[in-house]
Amino acid sequence: TQPSSGTNRKYRLAIIPGDGIGKEVVPEGVRVLEAAAKKFGFELQLDDFDFASCDYYQKHGRMMPEDWKEQVIHHDAIFFGAVGMPAIVPDHVSLWGSLIKFRREFDQYANVRPVRLMPGVKSPLAGRKPGDIDFFVVRENTEGEYSSIGGRMYPGTDREIVTQQTVMSRTGVDRILKYAFELAQKSPKKHLTSATKSNGISITMPYWDERVKAMAKSYPDVKWDQYHIDILAAHFVLNPDRFNVVVASNLFGDILSDLGPACTGTIGIAPSGSLNPERKFPSLFEPVHGSAPDIAGQGVANPIAQIWSAAMMLDHLGEAEASGAVIAAIERVLSEDKLRTRDLGGSANTQACGKAVAAILG
Amino acid sequence: TQPSSGTNRKYRLAIIPGDGIGKEVVPEGVRVLEAAAKKFGFELQLDDFDFASCDYYQKHGRMMPEDWKEQVIHHDAIFFGAVGMPAIVPDHVSLWGSLIKFRREFDQYANVRPVRLMPGVKSPLAGRKPGDIDFFVVRENTEGEYSSIGGRMYPGTDREIVTQQTVMSRTGVDRILKYAFELAQKSPKKHLTSATKSNGISITMPYWDERVKAMAKSYPDVKWDQYHIDILAAHFVLNPDRFNVVVASNLFGDILSDLGPACTGTIGIAPSGSLNPERKFPSLFEPVHGSAPDIAGQGVANPIAQIWSAAMMLDHLGEAEASGAVIAAIERVLSEDKLRTRDLGGSANTQACGKAVAAILG
Ligand SMILES: CC(C)[C@H](C(=O)O)[C@@H](O)C(=O)O
Ligand SMILES: CC(C)[C@H](C(=O)O)[C@@H](O)C(=O)O
Repeated sequence: TQPSSGTNRKYRLAIIPGDGIGKEVVPEGVRVLEAAAKKFGFELQLDDFDFASCDYYQKHGRMMPEDWKEQVIHHDAIFFGAVGMPAIVPDHVSLWGSLIKFRREFDQYANVRPVRLMPGVKSPLAGRKPGDIDFFVVRENTEGEYSSIGGRMYPGTDREIVTQQTVMSRTGVDRILKYAFELAQKSPKKHLTSATKSNGISITMPYWDERVKAMAKSYPDVKWDQYHIDILAAHFVLNPDRFNVVVASNLFGDILSDLGPACTGTIGIAPSGSLNPERKFPSLFEPVHGSAPDIAGQGVANPIAQIWSAAMMLDHLGEAEASGAVIAAIERVLSEDKLRTRDLGGSANTQACGKAVAAILG
Repeated sequence: TQPSSGTNRKYRLAIIPGDGIGKEVVPEGVRVLEAAAKKFGFELQLDDFDFASCDYYQKHGRMMPEDWKEQVIHHDAIFFGAVGMPAIVPDHVSLWGSLIKFRREFDQYANVRPVRLMPGVKSPLAGRKPGDIDFFVVRENTEGEYSSIGGRMYPGTDREIVTQQTVMSRTGVDRILKYAFELAQKSPKKHLTSATKSNGISITMPYWDERVKAMAKSYPDVKWDQYHIDILAAHFVLNPDRFNVVVASNLFGDILSDLGPACTGTIGIAPSGSLNPERKFPSLFEPVHGSAPDIAGQGVANPIAQIWSAAMMLDHLGEAEASGAVIAAIERVLSEDKLRTRDLGGSANTQACGKAVAAILG
């Protein structure tokens, strides 16, 4: 799928709410998308899908139908809520049967997660104000530590041994580094940080370092450094203003993209895009947070992560102006007590918060 | 080696400063140990070793002599500084040739790292005061993600594939869990948190979860929970008061034991013990920080991590009273501007800070 653009500003979106609060926040994201379409004069075709959910699993014994790929491959993007209900379906079944399938089979290798301290949100870090923390975590999204290769020997006995492989390919490492260097090159700070742990994980991590060094040669205008993940995590807390683009493996990117948002006050508003930069397949946009079974069904979930993910999707579709307007609307809503949700000390419920963002778009 | 105790309170210690600031902070640790010995009436035999350093490597082409084990196996403990000078010797050579050898060949499987907000130290977390953050990270120290199994296929080509195994054994996982549950059982809060990532790392991590569940049955008085490492890292920042004993794999423990100390203001004062709980081999005590080549030789390094590690060593040797006195002395020194080092906003150099702790012991 090529991004629609210019005269043909019509986008086909696959809407997949999934489980738990996904079902509550996705409609708010859609509400904002529709308001943006009206205001900025593009058209949306919204197709709802009930798969990639544990409800679907309970009815069909699988997370997605056999032809799921055909059903969504022609969409311009996938707007995803959250998946997983561990009380009903084991996590590895629900996640590997849906979210991780999308990432891998649609080659969404670049997982991009902005870490930004927003107005109206209090950082747990003393003295940090909006503007002080503003960077991207770029996470490899298709290989690395999330492999399915490994197994058990002498199962159930005292001699039991369990192994699992990390797998990195030249293709996989180089393409995410290229994406991250290009993102750094486009940004005013032109700085990239690579996260590894080469003094402990002595084969795969030095390989990643080696490829960073090689890739850096093609981006002479980008300054770069590298940290071991342990001390890097410490710097997220101590010096979050130091970062611009942080690139990391699947596991390290996962950790840093929860830790970063925690430093900006909450993971409850953090968005993410799982991108196929070549646009051969649809990219997927979803909150960093999960399905939160503990608060699902109460209408109190914070819809901002979903709405911010919608803004990232609009940018990806070529609607940069609409994307910027949605983010500006989010900032205004977050700044007002009565429009923020309760997790941020506000008094709004999910719908009221979503409606407030849509209303600002006019 | 059995711990000396009762009437025979004489301890043989192997003193290994290593590289960089290790050479500056170890003497301060020794100064405090000698003051404690005098005050509490035990004897010390201190044997210095120059190996496990990059200087040694440059002279001998290896990090340690062939008979290193015989040279230190009969000591009651190893008092270690820091190792690594990446400009001279690649990290994996210096570390795997020394520190990691100690951990593995002396079966120091329990790496214990207190995370405590000390008086006089400012937490980067808003509003946190001494007493608010006080827990232990217990890290598996001999297997897991730090394996040396793996390799490259099609090296140097576009088809290059690099793999590395994580290896967990029933023996390895159960013994660290047992250690952690016992530590939790002895503590007032009687709470344990296990860190995994079973929804992404789908073979080894679920195995760890399974063993936690099995082990918990033997400790019915200990409450426990488990988190995925990504959200756990977020909670270290958002809710550090929630934890008591946090048990984790080699890699996850490494990350959490830098992140935890960062939340308590600095990794510059964090101590660690690599314990062989069965006391078949000597345990090793060292700061969490490294050799810090950038500030080495200036006499400004903070010796508190080394001195706090000495306190942990005294406790391990059975000198609990002396250990408590050293920690109390550290707390007093940290509370005074002119006794703290510059990294903590004080004005003391390495020696002045070490002398101050020793002087308080009298
Ligand atoms: C130096 C390195 C190999 C080591 C580790 O990762 O174990 C260090 O970070 C530590 O925490 O002791
Ligand atoms: C649910 C889980 C498999 C997933 C991941 O680790 O990739 C999630 O934590 C995320 O960050 O998208």
